[in-house]
Amino acid sequence: MTTLTNARPLDRLADFPAIPEGWAYLDTAATAQKPQAVIDAITRAYDTTYATVHRGVYQRSADMTLAYEAARRRVAGFIGAASPDECVFVRGATEGINLVAQCWAATQLGAGDRILLSQLEHHSNIVPWQLVAQRVGAVIDVVPLTADHAIDLDAMAAMLTPAHKLVALAHVSNVTGAVLDAKRAADLAHGVGAKLLLDGCQAVPRLPVDVQALDCDFYVFSAHKLYGPTGIGVLWGRGDLLEAMPPYQGGGAMIDKVSFAGTTYAAPPARFEAGTPHIVGVLGLHAAIDYVDAIGLEAIHAHEGALVREAREALSGLNSVRLFGPADSAGIVSFMVEGVHPHDVGTILDEGRVAIRAGHHCAQPLMDHLGIPATARASFGVYNGPRDVAALVEGIERVTRIFG
Amino acid sequence: MTTLTNARPLDRLADFPAIPEGWAYLDTAATAQKPQAVIDAITRAYDTTYATVHRGVYQRSADMTLAYEAARRRVAGFIGAASPDECVFVRGATEGINLVAQCWAATQLGAGDRILLSQLEHHSNIVPWQLVAQRVGAVIDVVPLTADHAIDLDAMAAMLTPAHKLVALAHVSNVTGAVLDAKRAADLAHGVGAKLLLDGCQAVPRLPVDVQALDCDFYVFSAHKLYGPTGIGVLWGRGDLLEAMPPYQGGGAMIDKVSFAGTTYAAPPARFEAGTPHIVGVLGLHAAIDYVDAIGLEAIHAHEGALVREAREALSGLNSVRLFGPADSAGIVSFMVEGVHPHDVGTILDEGRVAIRAGHHCAQPLMDHLGIPATARASFGVYNGPRDVAALVEGIERVTRIFG
Repeated sequence: MTTLTNARPLDRLADFPAIPEGWAYLDTAATAQKPQAVIDAITRAYDTTYATVHRGVYQRSADMTLAYEAARRRVAGFIGAASPDECVFVRGATEGINLVAQCWAATQLGAGDRILLSQLEHHSNIVPWQLVAQRVGAVIDVVPLTADHAIDLDAMAAMLTPAHKLVALAHVSNVTGAVLDAKRAADLAHGVGAKLLLDGCQAVPRLPVDVQALDCDFYVFSAHKLYGPTGIGVLWGRGDLLEAMPPYQGGGAMIDKVSFAGTTYAAPPARFEAGTPHIVGVLGLHAAIDYVDAIGLEAIHAHEGALVREAREALSGLNSVRLFGPADSAGIVSFMVEGVHPHDVGTILDEGRVAIRAGHHCAQPLMDHLGIPATARASFGVYNGPRDVAALVEGIERVTRIFG
Repeated sequence: MTTLTNARPLDRLADFPAIPEGWAYLDTAATAQKPQAVIDAITRAYDTTYATVHRGVYQRSADMTLAYEAARRRVAGFIGAASPDECVFVRGATEGINLVAQCWAATQLGAGDRILLSQLEHHSNIVPWQLVAQRVGAVIDVVPLTADHAIDLDAMAAMLTPAHKLVALAHVSNVTGAVLDAKRAADLAHGVGAKLLLDGCQAVPRLPVDVQALDCDFYVFSAHKLYGPTGIGVLWGRGDLLEAMPPYQGGGAMIDKVSFAGTTYAAPPARFEAGTPHIVGVLGLHAAIDYVDAIGLEAIHAHEGALVREAREALSGLNSVRLFGPADSAGIVSFMVEGVHPHDVGTILDEGRVAIRAGHHCAQPLMDHLGIPATARASFGVYNGPRDVAALVEGIERVTRIFG
């Protein structure tokens, strides 16, 4: 266990009230637990400062509007957006991708245009494009994977044509933890005139993200995977792209003037935020960004990388375990125990108070590629430490004893 | 103040930590304050029981899934749905209406078909239909209002034709508080083969709602107006209608099987709930329903009705005040002070610690009908009492002195 000595002693377990002592929570890629600071921000928004935004003429509502828009500025700074107006609050990454599919792709793509995805995408970065492709007559191409289950950018370079209008890829795979060379992907996409959308769900909580440095065109992430509340996420889009997009949902706040003779729409981001927003979710996201930023994404990345190396090293010492993904995975380890269904692995680990996920991870095309119906997946967060890796390995040893 | 003696002494101010003593919060139609029981449910979901739903193989996640689906059953019971599967969790009423527009209307309506709305609808019940009408070539008709600013169902009866496929109306007006005779509207709509969607945002917190007794086809409401959390709401749809609708957003949880060759979809309600849901919002909504149900919607309706009568009586005694809406409004009083812009009314009231809303209330066509750009609006909730009416009236008297 020599690698562990290189890990920064980050371990923030004490900040997380919902993780009892002795419970190894290794399902952060599904959703992260919440630090007390985020819970306090949410509680305070409901029990002290609560009001609606954008509409009230009284002070409490004006204050809440300031807090809401301050959160948008915080998001913009956190991901390196050129302007807060480029940051649209959505329910989560899934809705962000659907918004781009519906408002950008459905209006910009036509019959014969092509969309490039990869074999490892999450369903949320596949199905919206299938729905829009069906609608406009576009075609979807699929970039294959490298031997260690990362997106093969060499293959992508060979596949791209001027018919490709959009490339949509996971910044970090939710199954293998593989980190995309996003800048190279952007250069390749732009080389044929295509836009690049990055699914940043697993990246934003795990490594520093600067959308301008990555040179992508759209970026989405969910707050609940970033130690924030449920029901809120962000779509970032380049200002000129958002400006040219038609409305998403109709309703209050997204309009300029409504009449039955004809309605005109507000500028982005309001144009895409119909109805009373998830006000408290936005404030909770602000607190979550403050929390991870105070630790530092470089430190989190190093910490999780060390835990991944530790886990892979220990698991690879067990004959019956097959590991997926690259060695430098960002915080996620997928594996299987030969002859044991991943659900049984998960159940036995749960008995030993180790929570992992077992299943297709909303990535069935990747499972098809691997030739298996499911994997077991352990994923790390700022609250995990070497004890969790030890508990995982001990649990897997128990699985192999039971099924051995 | 004789009417007040008939009001039940409901006044639950002590349950609401965000309303300080001496603050008259009269903007419940915009968003309701939260009782401690709801805040506690939210906090507990984050600091004790937090996990994802539908996917985890560990106990915590299985428990959270049970809680999530228990909330769906609670919603179904609360509004009289035939089955929990008819209840779709959405961001709010606005998204619910957009979902019906996109997945039902856009596929069921064609060129020349007609949609019937009313002059008093909220923008969220206008703009989605304008967007879909534009897309499919349908036409929107507008039911006029009665003299006291309610939807004129006699006029509607005369307007309906077999070309009308959908009627979409506010169950309770967010501006005038007028309560629709929903059963009659349903009978009229069904008489020509049209479906009826009801916007229940202002009704669900203010009177008992039973979707089967109302005989509507779609019903939507938002949790945050029902003393619940932000970012969550419900679309109820008749089972056969939901079953026939195509998917809404693509992503995790809404699929049966995903492959690049073709994807199949889950049954409702999962088909319409792509991505990790607003788990904690759903649990908070459950707590909010428990809260209002324990008081009783009949009691709430009587309480708010008494406050409305009290306010209308007192305000009508002031020469410069013009009241809108019917005398039996459900919890909402819209008015203007002659010669004073409603925003100035709101600002002066705020100085006296009375929070009302002033503006077009996302109902510009109604403002056009009234011939004014805005109204002042006071709206009541379970935490309000005669002292709030007195504070409102005192504030308006101050307005008339300042501008008199």
